[in-house]
Amino acid sequence: MSKDNDLSVVAAGGLLDRRLFLQKGLTFSAMAFAADTVLATEDLSRQPWSQKPGSPLSNYGHPSAHERKTIRWTMGNAMAAGNGVSWTPLQDLDGIITPSGLHFERHHNGVPQIDPKQHQLLIHGLVEKALVFNMEDLQRYPMTSLLCFIECGGNSNAGWQTKPVETQVGYFHGMASCSEWTGVPLRILLEEAKIKSAARWLIAEGADAALMNVSLPLDKALDDCILALYQNGERIRPENGYPLRLIAPGWEGVVNVKWLRRLHLTNQPVMARNETAKYTELMPSGKARQFTFVIEAKSLITKPSFGYQLNSHGVYQISGLAWSGRGKIVRVEVSADGGKTWAEAQLQEPVLAKCFTRFRIPWHWQGETAVLKSRAIDESGYVQPERAELVKNQGLHGYFHYNAIVSWEVASNGSIRHVYA
Amino acid sequence: MSKDNDLSVVAAGGLLDRRLFLQKGLTFSAMAFAADTVLATEDLSRQPWSQKPGSPLSNYGHPSAHERKTIRWTMGNAMAAGNGVSWTPLQDLDGIITPSGLHFERHHNGVPQIDPKQHQLLIHGLVEKALVFNMEDLQRYPMTSLLCFIECGGNSNAGWQTKPVETQVGYFHGMASCSEWTGVPLRILLEEAKIKSAARWLIAEGADAALMNVSLPLDKALDDCILALYQNGERIRPENGYPLRLIAPGWEGVVNVKWLRRLHLTNQPVMARNETAKYTELMPSGKARQFTFVIEAKSLITKPSFGYQLNSHGVYQISGLAWSGRGKIVRVEVSADGGKTWAEAQLQEPVLAKCFTRFRIPWHWQGETAVLKSRAIDESGYVQPERAELVKNQGLHGYFHYNAIVSWEVASNGSIRHVYA
Repeated sequence: MSKDNDLSVVAAGGLLDRRLFLQKGLTFSAMAFAADTVLATEDLSRQPWSQKPGSPLSNYGHPSAHERKTIRWTMGNAMAAGNGVSWTPLQDLDGIITPSGLHFERHHNGVPQIDPKQHQLLIHGLVEKALVFNMEDLQRYPMTSLLCFIECGGNSNAGWQTKPVETQVGYFHGMASCSEWTGVPLRILLEEAKIKSAARWLIAEGADAALMNVSLPLDKALDDCILALYQNGERIRPENGYPLRLIAPGWEGVVNVKWLRRLHLTNQPVMARNETAKYTELMPSGKARQFTFVIEAKSLITKPSFGYQLNSHGVYQISGLAWSGRGKIVRVEVSADGGKTWAEAQLQEPVLAKCFTRFRIPWHWQGETAVLKSRAIDESGYVQPERAELVKNQGLHGYFHYNAIVSWEVASNGSIRHVYA
Repeated sequence: MSKDNDLSVVAAGGLLDRRLFLQKGLTFSAMAFAADTVLATEDLSRQPWSQKPGSPLSNYGHPSAHERKTIRWTMGNAMAAGNGVSWTPLQDLDGIITPSGLHFERHHNGVPQIDPKQHQLLIHGLVEKALVFNMEDLQRYPMTSLLCFIECGGNSNAGWQTKPVETQVGYFHGMASCSEWTGVPLRILLEEAKIKSAARWLIAEGADAALMNVSLPLDKALDDCILALYQNGERIRPENGYPLRLIAPGWEGVVNVKWLRRLHLTNQPVMARNETAKYTELMPSGKARQFTFVIEAKSLITKPSFGYQLNSHGVYQISGLAWSGRGKIVRVEVSADGGKTWAEAQLQEPVLAKCFTRFRIPWHWQGETAVLKSRAIDESGYVQPERAELVKNQGLHGYFHYNAIVSWEVASNGSIRHVYA
C-alpha cells in the first residue's frame, strides 16, 4: 500500500477502520503488476477463446467447468438410505444469496420427485372447515417474498468436540443458506379454515417417504410463516421442498418442512421423533431442552478461513456472514488478537431481519501470528458467546444450536487453522 | 370471499386497498375445497413418492423435471453465428431475484469458455502506471455486493411496432434480470493506476471472439461501477461474463461488459459499433441520440398477463416488477380501467436503488372486461409514460429504450391479450 494512506489501526493486530476503502487514493501496489510490455504494443494477446465463436445461447445456464470444486459436500447415512446432509460451500461464496443449487440439504428419506399436479395440502384438525389445496389453487392466493436464512439446528455441531476440527467453513458451518422465498402467508390459509379456539399447535407433515413431521406453535404460524412456492425467483428445487415448503423465518431448519402435504391443528405438540429423540438439547443439569426453535445470533469469518493461504503481507479485506433468528444484525465486531481488542465491521446493505448479513473490514497483515474472530450482536441485544461461555452454560452434550465465536489462527507463514482461543 | 371482508374499491374495475391482505379473517372460499372425506379417515392417501426412498443428496441441484417449461427462450441470428439473445421467463417467476440459470443473454459471438487462470485484466491508456490483474489478484481486493437489475437497451422493442405483439411477458420484456453482484469497486483499481487529468472515458473490452467494446464515462466508473466476480453468491456463470464482468448499475446492458479483459482510459469515446450503428436512437427530428445509458423507470404486470387464463371470478393478487436506473422506485400505481383511475400498489420490501422492485395489489374481478396497467414513479420524480406519449416524444424509429406502460385486456371469459390502450 502507498504511504499516503491512513493505516492507523482501530484494534490490535492490524484491524483498520471499516471506512478505509472509501478513502480516495488507497492503493494495493503489491498485487497488480506493471504492464510495460503490453503497453508498448497496445495489443493484448488473444487467448484461444477470443479467436473463435463461443458456445451458443442456452435455455438454462450452469456454472463454469472451472468451478467444479464449488459443490455441496454430501454425507449420506450408511445405516439409512436417503438419510443425510449436504453442506453449502460458504468459503467459496460471496454476497448473501445462496444459489439454489448449493442450498444445504437435510433429508430423512431422500428427495421425493413430486408431480405438482398430484400434490395437495390438507389443513384440518381444530378448524371449522378442513380444506384441501391444489398447487394451482395456491398460485391464486396473495403472495409475499422474504429474504431469509435457513439453518439446521445441528449446524456447526463439530464445535462441541473437545478439540478443534480442522476443515473448511462449509463442511463445518454450511448447514446454513439464504434465499429469497416467495409464497402464501400461512395466516391467510388458516383463517380461511377458521381456527378453533382450542388450537395451539400445528403438526406439519411432509410428503417424503419418511412423512417427516414436526410441531409448530400456532402463534408462529400466524406471525410470519409462509408456504413457499418459489426460491430465488423460480419454483423451489426438489431437494428444497418442491412444490411446497413451510418457511418459518429465523427458526431451526427442521420446522421448515419440505414437500408439505398436511397441517393438522391440535391443542398440543405431536412429540414426533424430531422433537424428542432429536433436536432436543441435554443440559448440564441432566434435563433436556425441547422446542428450542429460534436460531440465536451467530457469525463467522469466511475469508480468510481454514484452507486459505496468505501469500504476502499487506492489506486484506476480512469478510464473513452474520445472522440471527431474532431479527436484524445490528453490529459485528472483529478481533485480530484472539478477542482482546475488537473493531466494528461494515455491514453490507441491505441488512434484513432473519437474513444473512455480509460484514467486511480491512486488515493490515504484517506477518505476525494473528487470531481472527467475529462476534455478532442482534437487535434483541444478544451477543454471540465465546465458546467457553457457551460450553459453561450448555455443557458438551447439547449437539444442537452451536453458535459460539469461531477463531482462525493465521501463522506467520500465512497458513490458517481452526483454534479454540 | 366471505361477506365480512371490506371489499370497498379504491379505483374503478375492482382494485382494492393494497393493505387488504393484512386484514384478519379475509377468506377465499371459492378456491380451496372442503375435505370431509379425508377428515373421516384422518389418513391421507400416500402418493408413489411417499412410499419409497427418494433421490440421493447431490453436489449441485437443478429444477424439477416438472418445470422444464420455465426456460430462457433463445433466438440466434441465422446471419451471424453466436449472435443472439435469450429472454428471462418473467411470467413464470416471482420475487425479485432472477436465478442465474435464467438471466437473459445477449451475445455478439457466443459464450467464450474462459480459463480463469489464463485470464487477465489490463488497465492502461491515460494512467500513470498501466496495470495487469490476474483473477487471483482481484480476489484479494476489497469487495462489495449490490442487488441490481441489468436491462438490455433493446428490451421490449416489440413495443415500437404499430400493432400490439401478442406474446408472453418474458419473450417481450425478458431482456431484464436482477442478481446480487459481488466484486471490486472499479474506483479502487483506477486509483491504483493513477488516472491522468486528461482522462474522460474508459473503453471496456471483452474477451469474446467479437472483442465487444463500448465507451463508459469516467465519472460513472468512479461512482458505482464494480468488477463483478460473483453472481447470486457463486462465481459468475459463463454466459454472464465469467470470470469478470463490468457492472454499471442502472445503465443499459451493453455497457455491462462481459468477459472483461481491458479498460483503456482515453479522452474521448471510441465510437464503437455498439454505440454508433447500434444502441443509438433516431428521433423524430431526424437526429439520433447517442450514449443514452440510463434506464428510465419502467414497470409491468407479470401476473396476470398474456397467457394466463382467469377461470373464476373473485379476488386476485396483481403482481409485477418495477425498476429505474435513476435510483429507487417510490410508487407504483395500477389501473384496472385502462388508465382512467389508479390505485397505489404495495411495494415489496426491500426496495433498493437500481434493483427490481416487486409490487402487489389485490383486485376483485367480477367478470367485466378490464384493462390492467401499471405505472412506475422513481425517486427522481420521473413517471413511466403511456405509449402514446413515448411515441410522440421519440417517434417510431428509436428501437431502444422502450419503457411505456404495458396494458393487458382481460376479456369477460378470463382470457388476456396485449393491447395499446
